[in-house]
Amino acid sequence: MTHMTKRPSVGTLSAPLVEALVRDAESLRLGIEKTSTGATIVDGGISVRGGLEAGRRITEICLGGLGQAKFVADSRFPGWTTAIQITTLDPVTACLGSQYAGWSLSEGDFFALGSGPARALWAKEELFGELCYKDEAATAALVLETDKRPPDSLISFIAKECGVSEEKLTLILTPTTSLAGSVQVVGRVLEVALHKAHAIHFPLERIVDGTGVAPVPPPAADFLGGMGRTNDAVLYGGEIALYVEGPEDEAEQLANGLPSSTSKDHGRPFGEIFAGYNFDFYACDAGLFSPAVVTVTALSTGKSFSAGAFEPALVEKSFRGA
Amino acid sequence: MTHMTKRPSVGTLSAPLVEALVRDAESLRLGIEKTSTGATIVDGGISVRGGLEAGRRITEICLGGLGQAKFVADSRFPGWTTAIQITTLDPVTACLGSQYAGWSLSEGDFFALGSGPARALWAKEELFGELCYKDEAATAALVLETDKRPPDSLISFIAKECGVSEEKLTLILTPTTSLAGSVQVVGRVLEVALHKAHAIHFPLERIVDGTGVAPVPPPAADFLGGMGRTNDAVLYGGEIALYVEGPEDEAEQLANGLPSSTSKDHGRPFGEIFAGYNFDFYACDAGLFSPAVVTVTALSTGKSFSAGAFEPALVEKSFRGA
Amino acid sequence: MTHMTKRPSVGTLSAPLVEALVRDAESLRLGIEKTSTGATIVDGGISVRGGLEAGRRITEICLGGLGQAKFVADSRFPGWTTAIQITTLDPVTACLGSQYAGWSLSEGDFFALGSGPARALWAKEELFGELCYKDEAATAALVLETDKRPPDSLISFIAKECGVSEEKLTLILTPTTSLAGSVQVVGRVLEVALHKAHAIHFPLERIVDGTGVAPVPPPAADFLGGMGRTNDAVLYGGEIALYVEGPEDEAEQLANGLPSSTSKDHGRPFGEIFAGYNFDFYACDAGLFSPAVVTVTALSTGKSFSAGAFEPALVEKSFRGA
Repeated sequence: MTHMTKRPSVGTLSAPLVEALVRDAESLRLGIEKTSTGATIVDGGISVRGGLEAGRRITEICLGGLGQAKFVADSRFPGWTTAIQITTLDPVTACLGSQYAGWSLSEGDFFALGSGPARALWAKEELFGELCYKDEAATAALVLETDKRPPDSLISFIAKECGVSEEKLTLILTPTTSLAGSVQVVGRVLEVALHKAHAIHFPLERIVDGTGVAPVPPPAADFLGGMGRTNDAVLYGGEIALYVEGPEDEAEQLANGLPSSTSKDHGRPFGEIFAGYNFDFYACDAGLFSPAVVTVTALSTGKSFSAGAFEPALVEKSFRGA
Repeated sequence: MTHMTKRPSVGTLSAPLVEALVRDAESLRLGIEKTSTGATIVDGGISVRGGLEAGRRITEICLGGLGQAKFVADSRFPGWTTAIQITTLDPVTACLGSQYAGWSLSEGDFFALGSGPARALWAKEELFGELCYKDEAATAALVLETDKRPPDSLISFIAKECGVSEEKLTLILTPTTSLAGSVQVVGRVLEVALHKAHAIHFPLERIVDGTGVAPVPPPAADFLGGMGRTNDAVLYGGEIALYVEGPEDEAEQLANGLPSSTSKDHGRPFGEIFAGYNFDFYACDAGLFSPAVVTVTALSTGKSFSAGAFEPALVEKSFRGA
Repeated sequence: MTHMTKRPSVGTLSAPLVEALVRDAESLRLGIEKTSTGATIVDGGISVRGGLEAGRRITEICLGGLGQAKFVADSRFPGWTTAIQITTLDPVTACLGSQYAGWSLSEGDFFALGSGPARALWAKEELFGELCYKDEAATAALVLETDKRPPDSLISFIAKECGVSEEKLTLILTPTTSLAGSVQVVGRVLEVALHKAHAIHFPLERIVDGTGVAPVPPPAADFLGGMGRTNDAVLYGGEIALYVEGPEDEAEQLANGLPSSTSKDHGRPFGEIFAGYNFDFYACDAGLFSPAVVTVTALSTGKSFSAGAFEPALVEKSFRGA
């Protein structure tokens, strides 16, 4: 019933957040490099400490200035009380149009997934065609999950693909083993639900609003450990709510189809699952990547459907690292 | 013992929040209409989507710039984890001097209750005499719980009654079935407690501070459903704390007198109660409208008194809509 | 392995928060006095009401602009749902370099402990030598836990010791029996953990990040009651997480050494303990002053260690005041 409004510019809306991150870098214990060609690189935890608050701010940048990431207290996972709560002004644009790590970047032995507002300037992912969205912001910010500085030629490539000069490009590097990196990955709890909704063919234009919350895992000591914990936080400790238009039975199907428990891989720490597939990410069941608990409300009738369950023992095992 | 300080201007304090709401309307998916006579009408969810964050911001406007409305995580009502927490700088002025829906507006077949800072410019409710309060802000903002645009002549009437030109008037329309409307109603969890404290004759000048929290219900599909759920969120899932001056026994009486369980109507979904009175709001027991759980602290002795109980099964039944 | 970065200026970072506190004093119901020599005194609850929000803001000032204090909902202590959550950008600088109440000030019958950013301008505590930290901010703000205005000569002394003119000095007075005072004391939940970590010789430079949460107690009617409750909130209801560098076994030792339960005095309301020592604060076991529950993560291996336990019955007894 509701008309699709023109999507706002995730680049323009997040630009003040990027400026603030760079301005407050010393307090946030982030590293700032100006490259010889004028790009800005923010080190979120490679050779600097960074921290949880830096991760929270980077999450809001990833959401394209269209969402809030707040620390809250969650007593459901004893010992892991600090959780991150996500709300958005427009979940599809914020999470899929910006936050989703959909830009695969590689050069030589450098590889990283890019997420955040610059994706919408590039807009070459198939998803952007479906969203009918291409941003025209004057600046570009891209978050790279990596523990290495990208090569200069790749930086130039990113700027060019975004249609901005390098002076207008900010790259934010967040290793999965850093505090900031841990926060910004579990800050994707709502995004993974939207991505799975899309994968199981729920029409994105019917998703009106949503919220998410997930416990913040302690950083792991290595990449695989970090990947394991941040995924477990979402798969076994994450919860989302979606408010959707359309027939009630389709909302119910969405609820039943979304939780991580729908996957045959569900039930073990992600690190184990990943090892079982010889560390081939794309061999894992894509349906695994979603929150533990979902509630979907059919706005047309006001009925809500919940599915899934928390797995506190798995969260404890994964986070504890014992 | 504390002297009553001059009340601050809820209109002046909330004016920047109103400006921000209008400025960010596109991102918040709100509709903006400038009427031919210069008034601003914000559509919070009639022909636009709006959303939870819009509702949160409208709640802070209702609190007259004297309160904070924040989303928090509340694990007490499984599946309904997103709650709204209210804190204020001055609960009586924020909640009764501004947020209370005390201005009954009607013309022809249009009827709506008005709440928010413009009430203190009008200041013709009996309550304002008791509060010794009349605002003199230069701008007026009124929130109307309605799914219809008010007629032009009523808009002119409101401006005139507030003593401002229509260019200085902003009307914010929030249907009870919208996401924003659901949030802004349960954001009244502290206000209903203050209103009931007043109704049972507790001296308002003795109320020093307070907090409130209530789970955010999913929007219902129709007006009655929305009215049911938002009331149930407060009556069966809402909690407040009040800090009061005066004798300890009067604080204890207040605690015992406040919860919704003191009402003979307590114990069924509000929708059922309302139907039982043939949908005549004023036939319902006024004492029903208050939070489930209250804690009152007597600052004179430091003792605290709690009363009431959550009714999670009723919250679940009401919110689920099954 | 991370290099110790230059500590940011807690005075400069918190100055805008101090200005905002003074500017919003009327709304926050704080008293403002300009002394004849130009100093600013903020009454946080002696002859004014103040409130919880004032306490939250004062907590952020105490954290030197390097931390966030937010109200959250915590369902672990029924009836005491409003909790304060602390996150910081740099826990050691924020909590020990600013928030710790380490400046003992007395003149005649006036005595108060000073905390907040001005301590780092003074920087004569032994701790500052260990932190290698001396602030050079242009303004000074000091929080005094007191219910009396300090004498003029002491105000001049403080300004002089901080190296600022009195026009640049702001003193914020927070009685332990006030709402603001209650909040700002339990807002020290992370700070007491850092202080105890220091006391048991854990190297401060290894503490990378941390969070804390504690229930907000109702104000007591007298100084001893206030001291009891605010301590009980932390000792029996407080929880922190620390992320540290260095060997895993030292992180485990830290976790085991930190909780209040390691103290022989643990297990009774603080008021009783204090009375048992004839109200001699320094006779109490210093190891008592720490949170109930701690989780320490060894970043070097990614393992986490938890210790301690909540004592909800003690929290209830203490807060209730029955």
